[in-house]
Amino acid sequence: MTDTEQVVVRAYIAEHKEVWLAQLKEWLRTGGISGHREYIEDVEQSAQWLAEALTEVGVAEVEVWETPGHPAVFGSWPAAEPAATTVLLYGHHDLHPLGSLKFWEHRPFDPVVVGEELRARGAIDDKGQIAAHLLGLKAHLAATRRTTPAVNLKFLIEGEAEHGSDNLRQLLEDHVEQLSCDVIVVSDTAMFNRDTPSICISTRGLVTAEITATGPSMDLHSGVFGGAVPNPIHALTTLLAGLHDSTGRVTIPGFYDNVVEPSSAERAGISGLPFDERSWLPDIATSRAMTGERGYSTLERIGIRPTAEVNGIWSGYTGEGIKTIIPSTANALVSFRLVANQDPAEIRQLVTEHIAANSPIGTNIAVKFPYSDYRPVRTPVDHPANQALLRAMHKAFETEIRYTHEGTSGPLAHLVEVLAAPAIFLGMALPDDRFHAPNERARLPLLHKGAEAAAYLWTELANLVTK
Amino acid sequence: MTDTEQVVVRAYIAEHKEVWLAQLKEWLRTGGISGHREYIEDVEQSAQWLAEALTEVGVAEVEVWETPGHPAVFGSWPAAEPAATTVLLYGHHDLHPLGSLKFWEHRPFDPVVVGEELRARGAIDDKGQIAAHLLGLKAHLAATRRTTPAVNLKFLIEGEAEHGSDNLRQLLEDHVEQLSCDVIVVSDTAMFNRDTPSICISTRGLVTAEITATGPSMDLHSGVFGGAVPNPIHALTTLLAGLHDSTGRVTIPGFYDNVVEPSSAERAGISGLPFDERSWLPDIATSRAMTGERGYSTLERIGIRPTAEVNGIWSGYTGEGIKTIIPSTANALVSFRLVANQDPAEIRQLVTEHIAANSPIGTNIAVKFPYSDYRPVRTPVDHPANQALLRAMHKAFETEIRYTHEGTSGPLAHLVEVLAAPAIFLGMALPDDRFHAPNERARLPLLHKGAEAAAYLWTELANLVTK
Repeated sequence: MTDTEQVVVRAYIAEHKEVWLAQLKEWLRTGGISGHREYIEDVEQSAQWLAEALTEVGVAEVEVWETPGHPAVFGSWPAAEPAATTVLLYGHHDLHPLGSLKFWEHRPFDPVVVGEELRARGAIDDKGQIAAHLLGLKAHLAATRRTTPAVNLKFLIEGEAEHGSDNLRQLLEDHVEQLSCDVIVVSDTAMFNRDTPSICISTRGLVTAEITATGPSMDLHSGVFGGAVPNPIHALTTLLAGLHDSTGRVTIPGFYDNVVEPSSAERAGISGLPFDERSWLPDIATSRAMTGERGYSTLERIGIRPTAEVNGIWSGYTGEGIKTIIPSTANALVSFRLVANQDPAEIRQLVTEHIAANSPIGTNIAVKFPYSDYRPVRTPVDHPANQALLRAMHKAFETEIRYTHEGTSGPLAHLVEVLAAPAIFLGMALPDDRFHAPNERARLPLLHKGAEAAAYLWTELANLVTK
Repeated sequence: MTDTEQVVVRAYIAEHKEVWLAQLKEWLRTGGISGHREYIEDVEQSAQWLAEALTEVGVAEVEVWETPGHPAVFGSWPAAEPAATTVLLYGHHDLHPLGSLKFWEHRPFDPVVVGEELRARGAIDDKGQIAAHLLGLKAHLAATRRTTPAVNLKFLIEGEAEHGSDNLRQLLEDHVEQLSCDVIVVSDTAMFNRDTPSICISTRGLVTAEITATGPSMDLHSGVFGGAVPNPIHALTTLLAGLHDSTGRVTIPGFYDNVVEPSSAERAGISGLPFDERSWLPDIATSRAMTGERGYSTLERIGIRPTAEVNGIWSGYTGEGIKTIIPSTANALVSFRLVANQDPAEIRQLVTEHIAANSPIGTNIAVKFPYSDYRPVRTPVDHPANQALLRAMHKAFETEIRYTHEGTSGPLAHLVEVLAAPAIFLGMALPDDRFHAPNERARLPLLHKGAEAAAYLWTELANLVTK
């Protein structure tokens, strides 16, 4: 059975990949950046496209769920066997902002294939991965000669993942019966590298803070007032420069209190990964000099250690020419990546207290948390769902499958909590696929392999005992 | 003679101030921001307006001098007596950028009178002050029954003062014969306060640096790379936070080496000024907590001490929504105010060396000086030209005239150097007139008094022995 399944799945994907690519390109052309109001209609159009595509595949029940923000797409396709495992596939159809267009080599909503790369915003994050599931699902049906999948398959492809998933929790609670499942499958992460297929077992949490330092109630001439009136940029840069100590540790009191230190077995697993720090950033960094928390490797720093990063800063005069002012306000966007068992609400509190304790004379520093938090997520390696995923991956890649820790954050904690189900990660990206950056790309051969693994996964999960 | 002169000058100004105001409003409507390319034609139009106004007053020779940037207006009106003192009036007709329009209560190029305030960009910096000279010159002619002024009067009203005066030095050198003079009169500064007319005897110099920290060659996802890849915002904020030590002194090695420490007499003069720090910033600061260099008063900090101020900072994501990135670059605009005898070229060198010595691992920090420097300027109190100005001011205001130190910077060092003449300051602004900020304003009664002082000044300077 195994060999036949492989043969049919691979033949199906080989025969249909061009038609599939044309459909994916069509979807990518709809755009759908959720972080900018000007793109509202694009996100709507993207959801409609996906709903039609699911219907075309044969999904029994397809709904577009409106939210106060952007719509999610729900689908449900019961297996012939009612006792089969129920699986919820989670991903997102909305896109990250583009940044400056001057850095894009191609137009971001006009997908092009260059060699084996598909280039467009959303090519890998996350439309490409969801589309790979559509291809894999068809291959699964062809190989198993079924008219319905081997699992009770549900879809929740949301439209606000790149804008904080603000309405996801409410959506989950409103539809908790429809979404109930035994396992959540997430396809929104990356594999270790091109030659090392891997399964992610944890993602970091996230707390995002907007910090505003306020000095004078209006911009002042720095010649007239400079030297005596507190400059909020000075206050803000002092605060931000002080977020790390000389060993690279975050200085906020209590920040590490609930961090589960990695076990020596976990550290050994990480250090056993074929990681070449010198080639890690082959064409995306001018400097290969790494920094970070003393006593941890680069992989540990980006996977299992919490961080504080300033993602944006803006104040005063930033236009053409000179404007010698003491600005009224200075602003920064700072994000904190969390690991088990840090609690986002507690981190918010610690950040707020730290800033209150570090506002200098004459300047008020305030912090807001206008966006959703994400809890860190972790599913044990020996969980039956992760073991099923391991078999599916191995069948597709026919090589050793490793375990990784994803440094990024997603709204998975909401799903895991509300649906009371574990999450496993079938990720098809590579770390240098430029998600969230200009010139985002997907490697088509990896999307095809991802589709193949997805085709096997439904068979592997069909008779899972998880409860 | 003196009493008659006062009577006629005051009557002339009272009778003509409404017509004069209408003309000034017309000039303000031309705009003329020199720091933005989109306003090139406005600056040209502003220059043409002034040239016509000078001709209308009777100035014998009026020329618009084009430069590689924006045009200056030159005028020359010889006295009947060839031996009379030759005076060059210096000011500027170009305007500072507007900043965010949302802070403007009125449209910046649509002047309105509110009570005794004239509100518009340029109302006081510097069109209002130049216009006051036109009114004062007419009053001078009326009061002295002359058809030409009592001095050989020259005008140089440049068009790039708010954009670094990039072409001024070349312009001065190209026209050194036409511009030759015994005294330079500058009207581009402020008086101590509403009730304390004063004469400025020094202005600070200026060096402006653009600092760029460069990390990865493109923006990176801070979830994927955060914690290990050097973040240029961290490098930049660390550098900027370290520009001052805990006593408020600039930390750049050698920065204070050539500073002339104030004499005890000078400090006594400054401390004798009726300065109420608590009311200094009545409506323009949320906090009245002053900071700055330890051991110096607020007036000393803003007048006779050098400073370093960050005027702008920008990096990473600053738009709507979230973008959790490690940015490729981080930028800041930093200005250094200098006092006698700091040398701008030497300060550039010290800043460059300091930054080179403080670039952290993995980040390159570079500094550029794309704009003109200004040297500090100082004219002694007992100089005959300052004494003539003192008499003219006293005749107009009929109260004690004090001496001040201006914290701002102008291209006066170029004039003083190239023309080999001292500069004296007839300033008509108040410190809270919001120059370089939204809602710039002039106090009309002070512009009228300034016009009156200007009318007397030409008589007082006529027989000056300066050489």
